[in-house]
Amino acid sequence: MFSENAGADRTRKNRQKSGETSFTMSILVVGSVAFDDITSPSGTVKNILGGAATYCSLAASYFTQVRVVAVVGEDFGPEQEEVFRRRGIDTRGLEHAKGKSFRWGGTYTDNLNEAKTDFTDLNVFEQFRPKIPAQYADTEFLFLANIQPTLQADVRHCMNGVRLTGCDTMNYWIQRTRKELGETLKLVNVLLINDTETKMLAGDSNLPRAAHKVLAMGPQALVVKHGEYGATIFFREGAFGIGHHPFRAPTLPIEEVKDPTGAGDSFAGGFMGYLASQEQLNREVLKRALFYGGVMGSFAVESFGTERLQSLSRAEIEERFGVFRELTHLE
Amino acid sequence: MFSENAGADRTRKNRQKSGETSFTMSILVVGSVAFDDITSPSGTVKNILGGAATYCSLAASYFTQVRVVAVVGEDFGPEQEEVFRRRGIDTRGLEHAKGKSFRWGGTYTDNLNEAKTDFTDLNVFEQFRPKIPAQYADTEFLFLANIQPTLQADVRHCMNGVRLTGCDTMNYWIQRTRKELGETLKLVNVLLINDTETKMLAGDSNLPRAAHKVLAMGPQALVVKHGEYGATIFFREGAFGIGHHPFRAPTLPIEEVKDPTGAGDSFAGGFMGYLASQEQLNREVLKRALFYGGVMGSFAVESFGTERLQSLSRAEIEERFGVFRELTHLE
Repeated sequence: MFSENAGADRTRKNRQKSGETSFTMSILVVGSVAFDDITSPSGTVKNILGGAATYCSLAASYFTQVRVVAVVGEDFGPEQEEVFRRRGIDTRGLEHAKGKSFRWGGTYTDNLNEAKTDFTDLNVFEQFRPKIPAQYADTEFLFLANIQPTLQADVRHCMNGVRLTGCDTMNYWIQRTRKELGETLKLVNVLLINDTETKMLAGDSNLPRAAHKVLAMGPQALVVKHGEYGATIFFREGAFGIGHHPFRAPTLPIEEVKDPTGAGDSFAGGFMGYLASQEQLNREVLKRALFYGGVMGSFAVESFGTERLQSLSRAEIEERFGVFRELTHLE
Repeated sequence: MFSENAGADRTRKNRQKSGETSFTMSILVVGSVAFDDITSPSGTVKNILGGAATYCSLAASYFTQVRVVAVVGEDFGPEQEEVFRRRGIDTRGLEHAKGKSFRWGGTYTDNLNEAKTDFTDLNVFEQFRPKIPAQYADTEFLFLANIQPTLQADVRHCMNGVRLTGCDTMNYWIQRTRKELGETLKLVNVLLINDTETKMLAGDSNLPRAAHKVLAMGPQALVVKHGEYGATIFFREGAFGIGHHPFRAPTLPIEEVKDPTGAGDSFAGGFMGYLASQEQLNREVLKRALFYGGVMGSFAVESFGTERLQSLSRAEIEERFGVFRELTHLE
């Protein structure tokens, strides 16, 4: 059942050291791998590895065995693949196509919560049709990063054995492919989107009311990401047999946000990765997953691109988990 | 030391029943008492009792003995005064002036986080010069609601015996009376403002960085109210001898926000009132105060005006405190 390798093994050993139960399943992440040009008040970088699948895979790799399906161009070489491999991520699902990789340029000014898109060159991503390697068929957890909803549904249909499916989307798909997105939402267990997307999808400006309307579309749980204020998980009545009270996790107030790119994808990676590392799916596990999501998001923004996510240790993650807990817990 | 009456006495008995240590000091609230016309998606009300001092006093009255200083006009009669009296609030500091009370009209549309002001008639409030009754001189806690900063400073100078001073302000004063506000900030222990006000006051769009700049202006602690996302308290290094790690409390996701007016003032009342009910001022007490602030704010928005704040029980408050805790606490 376990397709072990260096990354997951390291993770497991660390966890054993820290006294946690070790139980590693695998997660498949499907989404974009990109090269980004990013400008923020902290500086400018060009041509750095990015994309939702990259951030999410790296964040999840500290908790569980990760497999990735994405398309890359001829500009994606061994140096980039090594970023995944060093974290033990299975890259057999990386499709190498002719042409350039997806490229995105964005600028953050004072309001670091919102990027101004300078350019989007889809390149090989435009014709992306996810192909799932046969060796991935036994993957227990699935995360569908932000791609066209019909493609998300196709992947989900290929993965009949999955135990839990997480999904992201964005305003573009909510506005233009609402019907297709509706079909996809019936196939997923947990949807992870932000406040604006939740309200837009539900057509309701009150967050908890909007959340319940979204849950009525299919998912058993909805994680609403609040940016610098943390995240809230809402449950459909009876979902996972754990009742329906929401739960809220904080994020850390960070003085130097160097680059917010990928914070939401890293959140998803931490959340899904932690779930995949747990034998049981109960309320406490989902609560902790929300904390780990915030922890991974908070690391991601500390440096440009995926730099910080490439070189963490499980001990650093646990330490920050403790800081998050201290930030909100009464004695 | 204790100027007892029905409200505080009731509070104390309830607390004793619930097994908490009973220690009631008094708090003086200085600010506006007003009549409001409010329209929200839930309906329209006219001529209802409002004003920062009203919301704050009522919220604080569930925790401690409250005294109020404000000016009212001839339209403020025994019916309105009875709202304060029923909660045991000492109204000897209510100055009755010729003319009409402060009147405000506001409309909330879909975005309940922001009111469109329809009219502001300052009336008797325009010439308000707070007069502190001699019997109030022994008050231990002081809350300076949102009024002109120089008046806030004058009140603080009159109250030499206070143990702790809380203070609110708004964008209007930050932009127009920055120098005077700077003087006031040197005299207060805790400033309670929202995200936008914090960033405006500091001239910094990063919240934790802005918070530290505000703390450098004088207050030992800064409570930043995040509206529907809760609040964060930041401490100056060494403040209250409790270290400087911030603490964050949630608010409840509420499906039916009837009227957001006074939520921030009710937060301040819960926060300050709880502090005034505690013998010691330590980190745990400040953390709980932040939770109680959120609890009182969450009650305030459930009905128009102060209706809900007039008729709570301490048991309802404790029950909701438990819900807030459950919303964010890991096992």
